[in-house]
Amino acid sequence: MAGFEPLAEELVRKSLAEAAQEDLSYSHGRIFGSMYTTPHEKALEGHKMFLEANLGNPGLFPGTAKLEREVISILAGLMHHHGADGYITSGGTESNITALWIARKLANGNLDVMVPRSAHFSVFKAIDLLGMNRVDIDLDSEFRMDLTDLENKLSKHQTAAVVAVAGTTELGVVDPIEKIGEMLDGTRIYLHVDAAFGGFVLPFMDKPAPPFDFSVKQVSSITLDPHKMGLSTPPAGGFLVRKPSWLDLTAFSSPYLTQEKALSLLGTRASASVASCWAVLRSLGHVGYVEVVSECMDKTRYLAKRLGEEGFDLVMEPLMNIVAIRTGKRLSSPAEVCKHMATRGWNLSMSVHPKALRMVVMPHINRINIDELILDLLEITHHLRPEVKV
Amino acid sequence: MAGFEPLAEELVRKSLAEAAQEDLSYSHGRIFGSMYTTPHEKALEGHKMFLEANLGNPGLFPGTAKLEREVISILAGLMHHHGADGYITSGGTESNITALWIARKLANGNLDVMVPRSAHFSVFKAIDLLGMNRVDIDLDSEFRMDLTDLENKLSKHQTAAVVAVAGTTELGVVDPIEKIGEMLDGTRIYLHVDAAFGGFVLPFMDKPAPPFDFSVKQVSSITLDPHKMGLSTPPAGGFLVRKPSWLDLTAFSSPYLTQEKALSLLGTRASASVASCWAVLRSLGHVGYVEVVSECMDKTRYLAKRLGEEGFDLVMEPLMNIVAIRTGKRLSSPAEVCKHMATRGWNLSMSVHPKALRMVVMPHINRINIDELILDLLEITHHLRPEVKV
Repeated sequence: MAGFEPLAEELVRKSLAEAAQEDLSYSHGRIFGSMYTTPHEKALEGHKMFLEANLGNPGLFPGTAKLEREVISILAGLMHHHGADGYITSGGTESNITALWIARKLANGNLDVMVPRSAHFSVFKAIDLLGMNRVDIDLDSEFRMDLTDLENKLSKHQTAAVVAVAGTTELGVVDPIEKIGEMLDGTRIYLHVDAAFGGFVLPFMDKPAPPFDFSVKQVSSITLDPHKMGLSTPPAGGFLVRKPSWLDLTAFSSPYLTQEKALSLLGTRASASVASCWAVLRSLGHVGYVEVVSECMDKTRYLAKRLGEEGFDLVMEPLMNIVAIRTGKRLSSPAEVCKHMATRGWNLSMSVHPKALRMVVMPHINRINIDELILDLLEITHHLRPEVKV
Repeated sequence: MAGFEPLAEELVRKSLAEAAQEDLSYSHGRIFGSMYTTPHEKALEGHKMFLEANLGNPGLFPGTAKLEREVISILAGLMHHHGADGYITSGGTESNITALWIARKLANGNLDVMVPRSAHFSVFKAIDLLGMNRVDIDLDSEFRMDLTDLENKLSKHQTAAVVAVAGTTELGVVDPIEKIGEMLDGTRIYLHVDAAFGGFVLPFMDKPAPPFDFSVKQVSSITLDPHKMGLSTPPAGGFLVRKPSWLDLTAFSSPYLTQEKALSLLGTRASASVASCWAVLRSLGHVGYVEVVSECMDKTRYLAKRLGEEGFDLVMEPLMNIVAIRTGKRLSSPAEVCKHMATRGWNLSMSVHPKALRMVVMPHINRINIDELILDLLEITHHLRPEVKV
């Protein structure tokens, strides 16, 4: 069969090495367009020790299963509800799907889901997959879910769930979750918080963050991703529910496995990532993450300050480690800038609400990278402005 | 925060080592209840080289993306349709969900899905998740989808899809896919084949296997899992569609990433597993898998013969590397036997259609393991029969 002859060992190794070489590396400090980073060395070490494990059949891997219980217990504490339960997922998409699947089960036929326009596309995907109806909620002047629009639309729909975001992908803003909770108080509407990015940033900030987790009593479930700012190896997402019994709503009988019921959306699970999470959480501890976040925020403020000094129009003062600059005199087209910056080895990205050039200051970024980025950004935006004589 | 203080490096390492020790290991030859096995050494090597990669954002990892294209090309060829497209998923569940999601998109409002009672529970889960309606199809005397029952039910339902199985989880049987295809000819009903297990067995058998792949022209999509008999590291599933354009039906705009649209169900993807797949596929080649399957089938026939000699009632002559023995005089309760065998370090499992004790002969099993298994099985089933004087 064509292309399916065995290759000699040295050729396999050579091809893998070449492919690895072609991939970009976070460690070069030129990736500003990703919410991922070099995993922590302990995460890598833990991952490599558990490459056989599969928590799809947990009775065979009681050691890995125990590590997962400890990770979930730490995450539940971090989210201010020790009684929460959940599991390590493959990432935000699986977690968001599971949340809305549970919401649909609880909703007695209601299918409408209120989602801010700033939500990650995985939420839109989950709604489509589940056959639910998406109701878009406008953003307020600070790019957060607009409470008036939400209130208005809640009154007109058979709402199953509201999805709020703690740390939007585009700008890192936090929806007014406490107020949304108050609005939902006394209803049976499910409130899911997508803190895929913010879940490993907000709890570790030097300034108190707006309440977004189970401390808001109406919050039903939370997505938070160890493989983003948690520094775990991908794929490693986290999914927590306030009431452990809700996990049974999506359980399926699994007669041929070691457990009677399979709870998670996926069968086979990225179990080496569970060990990876455990290793980095226990190595860094709360204090270690405070340091990680503090360093990222220092560099973020530096980037924002420098961009401002150079005349770029910041969308907002960064709340988290994301900086966005608006289209305007100094920046004609974010897409064009991204493309030109890519030819110089930079990866930047874009936001849509508002249209802007977006930079995420992950732990792999240092100040020299920022200085170099700004030099190239100045050159490229200068050349891209047709009205400027070069 | 309780439990979230940093641990010293040596304690982290010690705890991980203890957890790894608690996990069972395929290499001890006592796991007969799993469709997983020790990954191939090249799979492990490839996996470890790509722990940062994330094909959720493929522009950053062009090397890994190229490896995936090559894997998909090999799998498409193996499934007899070079024009097929697809991607590496997290496993059978994601692949089966994606197949039925596409089927729903193509079905113009039809929501009924015909599924044999022998289908893996991930298919039932996918139907629930997608808000589709499950129509159970009975099994014939050989535990395959019953064609008369299927024909009868097709005439009464608004059918979106039929799911057929090539290598059932319980018994390793193959549904009459060619005949099912003929029955669907001229309709717009989507035919998905779940070959999660069989996809890496049937193409490599010494006897010609019944047609199950794209060689049956009505087959729309196929699930086949590299992390089962493909010897890749988990999680690594495969999903192939006959028409590449169908992948666009479930695509979502991903403005902040390097690609315009995200095709796969999950965002972050187990990309180290892609390198792992590539490495094992290219190391073994077609001829290597023929050898793997041939050895498994030899040991399977040996196990079946020995069980027969000892008076156990085989459910059927094994077609693939799964042996099941029926409840009867020699075997009172499969569940009891599993429990007792577990106290002696064996992992066996059960099937429901029919109620039986089930053993999968994966590559980690050798003849000595089989001989020891039978000795313990004889002792335990002897003691469990109350009518026998010990």
